Order: sequence, then structure tokens, then C-alpha cells
Amino acid sequence: MNSGWKKPAPEGWVEQLWTAMSEDVGAGDPTSALFSDEATVSWYIESQAEGIICGLGIAHYLLQPEPDEPEHCHCDLSAQDGDFVTPGTTVLSGVSNPGRLLTKERTALNFIMHLSGIATLTHQFVRKVEEFDTKIVDTRKTTPGLRALQKYAVRCGGGTNHRMGLYDGIMLKDNHIKAQGSITQAVQRAKQVAGHMTLIEVECESIEMVREAYKAGANIIMLDNMDPFQMSDVVREFKGKVILEASGGISLETVRGVAQTGVDAISVGALTHSAKSLAFHLEVE
Amino acid sequence: MNSGWKKPAPEGWVEQLWTAMSEDVGAGDPTSALFSDEATVSWYIESQAEGIICGLGIAHYLLQPEPDEPEHCHCDLSAQDGDFVTPGTTVLSGVSNPGRLLTKERTALNFIMHLSGIATLTHQFVRKVEEFDTKIVDTRKTTPGLRALQKYAVRCGGGTNHRMGLYDGIMLKDNHIKAQGSITQAVQRAKQVAGHMTLIEVECESIEMVREAYKAGANIIMLDNMDPFQMSDVVREFKGKVILEASGGISLETVRGVAQTGVDAISVGALTHSAKSLAFHLEVE
Amino acid sequence: MNSGWKKPAPEGWVEQLWTAMSEDVGAGDPTSALFSDEATVSWYIESQAEGIICGLGIAHYLLQPEPDEPEHCHCDLSAQDGDFVTPGTTVLSGVSNPGRLLTKERTALNFIMHLSGIATLTHQFVRKVEEFDTKIVDTRKTTPGLRALQKYAVRCGGGTNHRMGLYDGIMLKDNHIKAQGSITQAVQRAKQVAGHMTLIEVECESIEMVREAYKAGANIIMLDNMDPFQMSDVVREFKGKVILEASGGISLETVRGVAQTGVDAISVGALTHSAKSLAFHLEVE
Amino acid sequence: MNSGWKKPAPEGWVEQLWTAMSEDVGAGDPTSALFSDEATVSWYIESQAEGIICGLGIAHYLLQPEPDEPEHCHCDLSAQDGDFVTPGTTVLSGVSNPGRLLTKERTALNFIMHLSGIATLTHQFVRKVEEFDTKIVDTRKTTPGLRALQKYAVRCGGGTNHRMGLYDGIMLKDNHIKAQGSITQAVQRAKQVAGHMTLIEVECESIEMVREAYKAGANIIMLDNMDPFQMSDVVREFKGKVILEASGGISLETVRGVAQTGVDAISVGALTHSAKSLAFHLEVE
Amino acid sequence: MNSGWKKPAPEGWVEQLWTAMSEDVGAGDPTSALFSDEATVSWYIESQAEGIICGLGIAHYLLQPEPDEPEHCHCDLSAQDGDFVTPGTTVLSGVSNPGRLLTKERTALNFIMHLSGIATLTHQFVRKVEEFDTKIVDTRKTTPGLRALQKYAVRCGGGTNHRMGLYDGIMLKDNHIKAQGSITQAVQRAKQVAGHMTLIEVECESIEMVREAYKAGANIIMLDNMDPFQMSDVVREFKGKVILEASGGISLETVRGVAQTGVDAISVGALTHSAKSLAFHLEVE
Amino acid sequence: MNSGWKKPAPEGWVEQLWTAMSEDVGAGDPTSALFSDEATVSWYIESQAEGIICGLGIAHYLLQPEPDEPEHCHCDLSAQDGDFVTPGTTVLSGVSNPGRLLTKERTALNFIMHLSGIATLTHQFVRKVEEFDTKIVDTRKTTPGLRALQKYAVRCGGGTNHRMGLYDGIMLKDNHIKAQGSITQAVQRAKQVAGHMTLIEVECESIEMVREAYKAGANIIMLDNMDPFQMSDVVREFKGKVILEASGGISLETVRGVAQTGVDAISVGALTHSAKSLAFHLEVE
Repeated sequence: MNSGWKKPAPEGWVEQLWTAMSEDVGAGDPTSALFSDEATVSWYIESQAEGIICGLGIAHYLLQPEPDEPEHCHCDLSAQDGDFVTPGTTVLSGVSNPGRLLTKERTALNFIMHLSGIATLTHQFVRKVEEFDTKIVDTRKTTPGLRALQKYAVRCGGGTNHRMGLYDGIMLKDNHIKAQGSITQAVQRAKQVAGHMTLIEVECESIEMVREAYKAGANIIMLDNMDPFQMSDVVREFKGKVILEASGGISLETVRGVAQTGVDAISVGALTHSAKSLAFHLEVE
Repeated sequence: MNSGWKKPAPEGWVEQLWTAMSEDVGAGDPTSALFSDEATVSWYIESQAEGIICGLGIAHYLLQPEPDEPEHCHCDLSAQDGDFVTPGTTVLSGVSNPGRLLTKERTALNFIMHLSGIATLTHQFVRKVEEFDTKIVDTRKTTPGLRALQKYAVRCGGGTNHRMGLYDGIMLKDNHIKAQGSITQAVQRAKQVAGHMTLIEVECESIEMVREAYKAGANIIMLDNMDPFQMSDVVREFKGKVILEASGGISLETVRGVAQTGVDAISVGALTHSAKSLAFHLEVE
Repeated sequence: MNSGWKKPAPEGWVEQLWTAMSEDVGAGDPTSALFSDEATVSWYIESQAEGIICGLGIAHYLLQPEPDEPEHCHCDLSAQDGDFVTPGTTVLSGVSNPGRLLTKERTALNFIMHLSGIATLTHQFVRKVEEFDTKIVDTRKTTPGLRALQKYAVRCGGGTNHRMGLYDGIMLKDNHIKAQGSITQAVQRAKQVAGHMTLIEVECESIEMVREAYKAGANIIMLDNMDPFQMSDVVREFKGKVILEASGGISLETVRGVAQTGVDAISVGALTHSAKSLAFHLEVE
Repeated sequence: MNSGWKKPAPEGWVEQLWTAMSEDVGAGDPTSALFSDEATVSWYIESQAEGIICGLGIAHYLLQPEPDEPEHCHCDLSAQDGDFVTPGTTVLSGVSNPGRLLTKERTALNFIMHLSGIATLTHQFVRKVEEFDTKIVDTRKTTPGLRALQKYAVRCGGGTNHRMGLYDGIMLKDNHIKAQGSITQAVQRAKQVAGHMTLIEVECESIEMVREAYKAGANIIMLDNMDPFQMSDVVREFKGKVILEASGGISLETVRGVAQTGVDAISVGALTHSAKSLAFHLEVE
Repeated sequence: MNSGWKKPAPEGWVEQLWTAMSEDVGAGDPTSALFSDEATVSWYIESQAEGIICGLGIAHYLLQPEPDEPEHCHCDLSAQDGDFVTPGTTVLSGVSNPGRLLTKERTALNFIMHLSGIATLTHQFVRKVEEFDTKIVDTRKTTPGLRALQKYAVRCGGGTNHRMGLYDGIMLKDNHIKAQGSITQAVQRAKQVAGHMTLIEVECESIEMVREAYKAGANIIMLDNMDPFQMSDVVREFKGKVILEASGGISLETVRGVAQTGVDAISVGALTHSAKSLAFHLEVE
Repeated sequence: MNSGWKKPAPEGWVEQLWTAMSEDVGAGDPTSALFSDEATVSWYIESQAEGIICGLGIAHYLLQPEPDEPEHCHCDLSAQDGDFVTPGTTVLSGVSNPGRLLTKERTALNFIMHLSGIATLTHQFVRKVEEFDTKIVDTRKTTPGLRALQKYAVRCGGGTNHRMGLYDGIMLKDNHIKAQGSITQAVQRAKQVAGHMTLIEVECESIEMVREAYKAGANIIMLDNMDPFQMSDVVREFKGKVILEASGGISLETVRGVAQTGVDAISVGALTHSAKSLAFHLEVE
């Protein structure tokens, strides 16, 4: 019963899959007419690099035999999202009508390569901090239209999701505070708006701001662009009182140092906005 | 009458913009309730790195004052897609209701950062080959759902678009040829399907394959993963007879050497599948 | 700059408005052909009962003059969502082409009557407990397709929103616990899934269950179908340690007694699934 | 071959079901990750009150086993829309993966509770007038977006549908007549617009208006807010010449008296705008 | 305030317009890049044949200046749907940016040519029977996706609409009767289903069938493929008792003879399934 | 494995099918309630005229038994799109529940009749020129919303598709050239915009224009409204140098004379904008 997905699966991907197919196929794929309906070929998708696979659930769904393909067609998983792959690992294989297969090949690979790139980069961050009790979390800096899928890829790489959007949490960022006048006022207003299941996070650039936010009732503090020394000071004073999240240009080179300060979470925008794709190809035998 | 867009603008972006807004805002942005309807703030978006700006048309459209914002609100462009920016270049600025502005900030920046990343990487490739008569072209290895926008970003960076999808050109790749049996057979069948405005491209891995494809009537030859010496041989024999396109893992380090062989075009999948985003932020004054 | 809406406004209502118009108008309103394009009438919408108005933002938007209506047409608000109305209170009035107006009348009234019914019932609950520090909150027992609007109506009536859906909070209900085997196991698994902005609520039917949930790390306890004596026991032991929410068939008759126990919140499904509509009509002068 | 639906089934419910699921599930249900793919539970939905069941077709469709649920999962109907239920009547039962089941539980119940509430209220009206030859009909005062489903629920309760919307019949209401100047003029214009399959209904508040409408060629007369004595006068003069429909605030207390006057139909807005939901719950064994 | 439309206008055309634009423009119109944003041209649309214009409302809406076109651009109507045109009649003219104009030209003309073709053919039928009291009505034999627009075109040509679809009337055709067993049984069942605003039409092929249908309670009889003599017999016996509609392969040559029999309506499928388009072109000056 | 379709099949037809069903069925088909769920009837669709069948793939898909129809229901093809039919040829037959069948009958026939009309007209043109090496091609003068299907019907009739829309080819028509100032300038600009897979077509009305276009680098010349003598002159001078396409009011009477001139392609707008439907009916046995 492996569907390729790691739980919990994201929502809305079926529609996104058909949108992607539609932008590739447009008014029709003329090359599909090169092949007779009876023809079949064996094929497999394999990784060409090392990393974490993600997107198999979509590819498996897309490459299932269609009702009018010959009866012996099939499509089988040999991995699951979140698995580690090396060059040459076969993740999906099958027998298909070549016209059908080649119309869908690029779209299937585009999903796998994009999502595996994110899962792999996340995994690299997670491994850097694995000896600490610190979560690697994503941000809202996602590629337009792909948030649920990208956040799923972060989970496949071992990361944890921050809020999904503006709707499921309240974060008061620098611009909110500037426009409100002060942290205290912003937090107090936010508390009036928030339901009893909603936590309030405040972005702070100095320990003074952290103190004000804590006093005003913030539940989570984002330490924005602080250096490790500043963070250590904040951790010493506030650890256990509020949740502490480090943020701001943290890279694979610097993430271990940040984790050492004792923050609860480290958010990394690059996971979703700057991951390179992981190479996979589909081979016909 | 600068709308931010470079011509020809892509299609379908309005719907994609609202999809992106919708995934961020969901059932509502509770923080928008922190600000009164009468409040206004001045703001600007500036680049934090060097590159080519892209996505201003979307941001300008999104950040226009809404009917119920105070009358003195406005949103003005100071750049156009395709312009070169350096850290600190202001590209868009305005006066807005802070509730409205901060609900839309992240989505506007996500588009700009993603598309400018692609335009910038394309521009880097284009500059490497500017002394040669070689086009840098994109591929179908795009992020699902964003093809038209990403191909637009490639144009803003000085690149040229390959076909948009399966529908507007016929390319016979290795898997098509394997499934057909031979290049000759694949090209002949394709010619029966193609209209009189459609060119046929064939992916070849050796000069022998190029010869077969040319003889069968191919209009464009993709030289797939050939080294510069092989390409030079092909160019010597076929330049001017068919269009020659180099492809396969070409990087900023190797692209100049490929251009020197005299190919007509170089296609680079990384333009759309592995560009890092270019950093921009929105500042409230 | 009154738009009729109380902040924060819900999302997605424009699409729902046109869906509603579409199901009423279908292939066209033949009676609109009875009136010439030049004709105009004065009209107003007034309440026929006492309660809280909700839905004016939609009605105001819908009844705005269209580009081809005569120039002196207009549509003006004289109230705002959340206002108290009595029989005869005019909330919206204008001058319109009668063909246009009468095509839209029913849809405008259907939204106002439905949402005002919810706001009014919520307000009745809120007033019953106003001397206590207890919030009246809604549930996920909403009318299919109208959740964001109905939860907005609850806010207009003075209530507070519980989570919007399954996605923005974790609640472990009786069926989750049965299927998991125990409260402790369910909470522990949920903590692995939850991000750092997510609280975990557990439905408990006895003080023993509350103790287990608290020990396992629950942040909120729903006291399901407990009587006031049981609730008082729980409040005495857990007030301030976790958030306590009463639930289960609480009516206008019983809500005050529940609030007296000292619970933090009282959730009432009837707010959204069983409110009667509040009567309004549109009169042409 | 019981599908749960009573014929004729409404249209468009599949899309409405997924809209409802989408507003509840949003970007994903994190609690679905608590359960393994292999786990299964037995469950049933039972009524907690007395009334007419409606919405089983939707629930049965939604709760069908999905392709990746264990093979022994199933979902079986033990009732059909329109059946009478009492507290404890099981209407649907099955075996499901608990993650799948609990993601869908609330949406299934929300449809059943809402539609059964309407069917039950309709049934109460129908029983009050069962000794008379009078139809109970609904109105266009429906909940936005749910008209086809609500009118289906009215049919399940034994009621008859009035026109579905503006498009499938012509009704000249008080505001149409005011804007036209006179009943005669309004009816004459309507006759020019109407096709040969369309009847014309006119809303009248006095017997004089009925006479004018009849003379002008109306096919149906709505007796708006008349008292039983006035209605009896109209019935005496016009029974059999035109169809007579009573309307205006008719309640369970007054409906029998109205039916006694001999009108052909009684329309009741409350059927769809003010029905309380009928309670059902889903139990895991 | 001429919008180009004749009342009542159809519904849903805006969405159909953008669907049509989308299938023509696809991922973008590269030729729009040939023209600078400042360029403008004068243009007009004129008929190249004689007939009834239809579709001006759509064309006028589409060709309105867009916000970023130069300020002196405009688009003006000189006719209205339903007007008679001859070769050389200008119906719409304006000043536009050539890039914008030429992207929209074909779609605007496609609507006008298609709808004017229908209006013109309808008009030819209507004129053939103008001395008789017989309506020319359309059928459900429409081009998929365009029903509301095509039925609007029929109205512009002077025809009358039959029911819009299956939903707004009950017609028992030969296949319904065969599957039911008899006319009597079919009509009796239909009467149970129909609301009090719904008429029942029965398709009959002989006077015996007409008698049975009338006796069973049909409101309208369709005389299917009868010859004028048979129709005359039916008219003699049933005129004034039921509405009589002639149908079945009636052409411009035969329609007058059918009207002479005294039937109330003549339905013609060819109006919408076999009208030739009426030629119009757009000229740049 | 005949699915009814001829390859390559068009895209997007499933959505268009449901749009068409929806406009016919609307809020529901009341006549479907006349038949019990257990009833079944045998039926077949047969042609009533001579021509080329098209649209069987859609009809076959639509008329497949639904899950709740009796088990012995089926739907079988006895022809394929592109086949020649004569009056009485059965193309599709089956056993269905009559309620289901009759709800879908009209929509299935509307697709078949419309598309077969186009395929048949195309076939008539193709046969007129079969002794010449000239392709019959379609245009962008299609019925709004149906382009992909109509162009598919052209292929079924033996025609060849011109570009699908503005996006997949560059054609410079009279209005483009007027707005640009000259053919030379228009072609030169177009070459800057075009990718390496895109050909440029220019519309010319005289041999002088052809010479200018050829010199400027056009790949295809459309000979617009030239007489056969002018075309022969152009063919003599340019055959083999550019692709030559004749266009402009070419009819079944004149097409052979045009083909004799030696042009490579003849485009005919009437194929898609003025084809009469081909008659088919569905008979219940």
C-alpha cells in the first residue's frame, strides 16, 4: 500500500499536476501520434545524484496505465518519498504505451527534480544540527503556487513546517511593528484578534526588543539577523519561557554555530527559494 | 505607460498571482485587523544583490491601492523588468494602508525574488557568450505551474525561448527514437504529423546520428552531451544546413567553450530548474 | 471609507457571491428585459427584526452601479457589519436601474439574512456570559462552502473563532483517541507532527482523561458534555495550567451556568448550524 | 443499487463536496499522520434525533474506501434519502483507515445534518396539510451556494420545488410592479419576453390586484400576506382559473388554516433559510 | 448607454470570452512585441454581407482600451445587437495600441461572425412567417459550450427561445415514451415530478398520439415530422386547447407552408447547428 | 483498444464535455425521475447522412455505464473518428438505464453532429485536390471555445492544421504590416522575437509584396485573395524557396483551380466557421 507519499501528504497536488501537464501539452502532443496504441516499452526513473527523493506520489499517480493502454502495462514504486538515493537508484519503473509515457515524462521529472532538490537541501541542514535539540523550519518564501508541495518536501527532508501562511498563526514582523508604533502595542492588538488556539510570534533584532515582546505576551520570539553571541544572551535569559527561533541568512556553513546557542528552531528561507533541483532521468529500455 | 513588463509579456499571470495570494492568505490574514482603515505608511522595495530585475509587472499590479484605501495612496515603478540592479536599487515604492500592504508583501517579493533569480542566471550565461553569435535558450525543465513566467524571465535576462511545450514544435528525443526503432523512421512519421509551420528537431549523440537525422529531413539538431571536439566536427559539416543546438549539463564554466564551436544555440535547463532567488526586501519608512 | 466589513474580513467571498448569483440567474433573468436601460428607482434595505447586521460588505459590493447604469445611480451604506439593528433600521440604500436591481435583490438579501442570523445568535450567547471572562467560540459544524463567511459572522456577533479547519490546529477527538488506543499515545504522536506554532487540544469526558491529557502535554482541554459540577472540579485543578474549553449541546438556557464554572471558552455548534435567518427586505420607493 | 439518493438527484454536488472538504482540510490534515496506512476501524453514522434523513448520497460517496486503503475496507448504506429516522437509527457504516475516515468525518456530517434539517422541517409542514390537496413549496430564500441541494432536501421531505431561480419562470413581485407602474403593464411586457413553455406568476396583496393580474393574463397568482378570509374570497372567485399560491410568514402553527382555504400551493421560505440542523454523529467501535 | 447588447443579455459570456482569448493567445502573442507601447492606430469593424449583427456587446467589451494604452484610445459602438447590416456597415470603431488590438482582433471577429450567422438565419425564418401568428423557436441542438449565447442570437434575429435545457421544462420525446411504455404513463409520472410552474410537452407523430397526450394532461404538443395535412388536422381538433409546436427538418423552403397550418410555434434545429457565419472584418486605417 | 479517437487526440475535451452537460442539465433533469434505477434499454446511434464521423471518443466516454447502473449495461464502438459513414451506419450502441441515457443523449449528439460536419466538409475539400500535392489547412476562424476540437475534426477529415493560435507561430497579416509601416520592418522585428523553432509567415496581396517578404526573410507566404493567374506567377518565381499558402474565400467550386497553380497549402476558414452539422440520431429499441 505504498503510494509513494510520506504522511501527512500535502493537499491540492492533483490540480497542480494537471496544471503542469496542461502547460506542457497545451493543445496536444503531436509526437504521441508517432506510436501505435498497441506498442509498449519498459522504462525506469533513476536518480543521477545523491539526495532525498520527493515527488514519487505524483509521478506514480501520473504514470499509472490509462484505461486504453494495453493490459500488461503497469507502474511500480521501488522507493518512497523521504528515502535516500544515490546515482543509479531506481525509484519507479513500468511498462507503458510510448505515446502516453513520453507525453508525461517531462512533467513527472519536473516535479521529482524540484521537490527532491528541496528535500535534499533540507536534509543537509538537518544533518548539520542533528546533535542538537533544534528544529530546521521553513518560511513563507516559497515559489508561488507550490507552497503546500514545497513544505511537504521540507518534511520529507526531515525539516519542520513553520506556519503555512498568514492564516494559521500571527507573526509580527519589523514592518508590522513600525506601522503599529511599538512591539507592546502590536502584541496587545494581536491578542485581541487571536483565538485560543493561536500563538503570537514577534520578530526582534535585539535583546531589548525580546524583553519588550516577552513582557507584552509573545509566545514565540524570532531572533532576526542576530549573531551567535547575541543569540546566546537571549537564550540564557529566555530559554523555556518562550520559544526561540533564529532567522536571517543562515547557511550550511553557519547553521551549526546557531544551533549551538540553544535556540529551539532555525528558519531557513533558502530551503524553498534557492534549492537546486536534484537530477533524475527516465530511461526506456 | 511603463507597466513594469518587458514585451511580450507572459499570459496567465493574473490567475497565478491570485493562486499565490490565496495560498498565503487562506481563510484570512488576522494581522490585517491590527491597523485602522485610515492608517497609511510609505514603503519601497529594493534589491539586496546585483542582477536583473524581473516580476515588477506583477508586484506593481498587486500593490496598486485598492478602492477602499485612503485617496493619497499610490504605487510607482522606478524600474522595468530586464533592468540591471545593484544592492540598494529601489524598484517600486508607494504609500499604502499597512494592513493591505503587509498582507500582500510576501507574495510580491516571492514573485520578484524567484523571477529575478532566473533572469540573473540567464544574464550571466548570455554575457559569457556575448562575443559569439549563439543564443542561450531555455528548456521544458521548468517549475510546475510557472512555465510561462519562467520563460518570460529568461527573455528578461537576454535569453531566447525554446518551444513552450510539447504542442508548439516537434522534438524527437532519445526515448522517442528508441521507441520508434530508428531516427529515420521517427523523422518520417513526424513529418506526416507536422503542419507547414512546424520544424522538427532531433536529439543526437554522435555525428553519425546527425547525418541520419539530416538525411531524414530534420530541421534542427540537438547535440546532446557531446564534447567540444565532437561539436566542432558537426559544426564543420552541418553549419548552415540545419540549426545546431548544444545541450546537456552546460555550466557557466563551460558555456564559452561550447559557444566557440559555432553552434547556433545552447540550451541550459539550470536556467529554470536551479536558479537561486535574487534577494529583495520591502521597507516601511 | 466604510466598506461594510468589520476587520478582519473573510476571504473568498467574491467567488461565493458570483456562485450564488449564478445559481439564481442561471442562463439569464428574463424579467430584466421588462425595464428600459434609462429607468431608475430609489430603494433601501431595512431590517424587519432585532439583531446584529452582517453581510453588508457583500451587499454593498453587489449593488454598486454597473458601468452601463445611468450616471446618477449610487449605493450607500448607513451601517456596518456588527451593528445592532431594530425593525425599520435602514442599512443600505440607493438608486439603480430596476432591471439590474431586481436581478440582484434576492442574492443580496440571502447573504444578509443568513449571516445576520448567525451574528445575532452569537450575540445572544455573548450577552449571556458578558459578566464572565469566557469566550464564546464556534466549531467546524458549519454549512458546507460557507465556513469563512460564517466564522466572520460569529466575529461580528462578538464571538471568537476556533480553528478554521483541520489544517490550523490539532484537536484529538474521541474517535482519534479510540483509534490510537490512548490519550497519551495520541498526544505524543501529535507532538511529533506539530510545528512550533501549533497547539494541541484534547477532547476529554472525565477528570481522569483531563489528567492524562495534561500529563501527556496537551495545551488545551475540551470538556465534552460534562455537567457544571464536573467542569468546576476540572477548573479547580487545571485553571491556568491549560486552556479549558466547554463543549456539547450548550444552549442559551444553560450557557450562563457553564460560564460560571470558570472555563476559558465555550464552543457552540449551533451558532453556525442552527441559527435562524434574520429578516430583511428591499423596498422600492 | 441504492446510491443513497432519491430521484431526481441534484446537480453539482460533487464540486460542492470538494469545496467543503477543501475549506476544512486546507493545506493538509496533520492528524492523519497519527495513523499507519495499515490501520483500520469499524464505524457507523447514526441519527440522534427524529426526522427525515437527507445527504446520504454525498456521505456514501465521500466515505468510499480510497485506492490505497486496505482491501477489506467498505462503506455501506442502510437507509436512503427521504427515510424516516429516530434516535439510534444507523444510516451508514463501514470499515476505513482511521486517518482517512477522520479527515472526512466532519464534512460528511455537516452535509447530512444541514440537509436533514431541511427535509425534516419540510416534512413537518407536509404532514400538517396532508388531508388537503395543497403542495408545500420552497422559495429562492436559500443559503448562498447550496440551492440545488437544499431544494433536493425539500423534495426528500415531501415538498415540491418552486422555480429554481430567476431563469426558469417569471414571477412579478411587488418591486417589479412598482417599477413597471402597474400589474397590467408588467404582465403584458412579460408575455412578450416569455417563451411558450414559460408561465407567469404575479404577487398580489388584495383581491383587486388578483383580478387585474388575471385579466392581464397571469397563469399563477401569489397571495402575499393575505389572511385566511381574504384567501378564501380569492379561492372562491378564481379556483381552477389560475393556480393560487399562498405566501408570507406561514408557520407550522398557521399552515393548516391556510391549506383549508383551498389554495393550490403554500410557499415557505423558512424551509431553506431557518431550518435547524438534525443531529447525527459518527461512532468508531 | 448602449452596451451593444439587446435585452435580456445572456449570462456567462465574460468567462467564455476569456476562454476564447486563452485558446488563441495561449502562452503569449509574440507579435505583440513588434509594436511600442506608445503606438496607436485607428480601426473599424465592418460587415461584408447582409444580415443581423450579433456579438457587439462582447466585441465592445473586449476592445475597450486597457489601463496601459495611451490616453486617447477609445472604442465606440455604431450599432446594437439585432440591427440590420449591409456590406460596408461600420458597427464598431476605435483607436488602440496595435499590439493590443491585433492580439484581440480574431477573437472579437469570431464571436461576431458566429453569432451574426445565427441571428441572420433566424431572421430569414422569421420573415418567411411574419404574416402568421407563429413563433420561430430554437432547440437544444446547440454548439457545445455556447448555448446561452446562441439562444441570445436567436432572440436578436427575432426568434423565441424554447427551454434552455433539460432543467427548465419537461419534454417527453420518442425515446422517453418508448422507455416508459406509453404516453399516458409518461405524462402521469411527469406530472408527479413537475412543480406548479412547469409545463409538460409531448412529442407526437400522429393525431392518435396527440389525442392520448392531450387526454393524459400534456400542456404542449410537438408535432414531429408530420406533413402539413396531418398538422392541419391536429390544429383543427386541438387549437386553443394545447400549445402546438411543429418540428422536424423544417427549412426556409417549407416553413411558410407549416405556418399556414396554424401551429403556434415552429422549432428549427438548424438555427443553431447549421448556420453559416456572417462575414465581418477589422480594418486598420 | 479503439477509444473512438484518431491520433493525436485533442486536449481539454473532458472539461468541455462537462461544460456542455452542465449547460443542458443545469440544476437537474426532472425527467430522469421517470425511470426506476433497475430499468434498462438497448440503444444505438446511427448516421442519417453521408460523411466523416467525428466525436465518437467523446460520446463513448460520456455514455459509458455509471457505477450505479445495472451490471449488464455497456457501450460499444463500431466505428472510429475519421471513418466514412452513410445513412444507417451504426457507430455506437449499448444498454443503459433510460434515465441516465436520456439525460446524456442530446449532448453526445451535439458533439458528434458538430464535429462530423467539420470533418465532412474538410473531406470534401481534400477530395477535390487529391491529385495535387497540396494540403488543405484550417485557420484561426474557429467557434469560440472549441478550437482544439474543431482542429481535430479537420484532421479527421484529412486536413492539416495551421498554427493553433497566436502563440505557436508568427503570422504578419495586413493589419500588422500597416501598423508597422512595411513588410521589411515587420519581418525584421519578428525575427528578433522568434525562437529558433519558429517560422515567420507573411500575408501578401501582390507579387511585389511576396518579393519584399522573401527578401526580408519570411519562411512562408500567404497569398491573400490572389486570382489563379497571380498565384501561378508567384509559384513560378518562388516555389521551393518559401512555402506558399493560398487563402481568401476559396470554395468547393474554386479549390481545384487553386491547387492546380502549385501552391503548397490552401487555407479555408469555412471548414470551421461555416460547416453544417451532419445528422445523427439515437434510437431506443
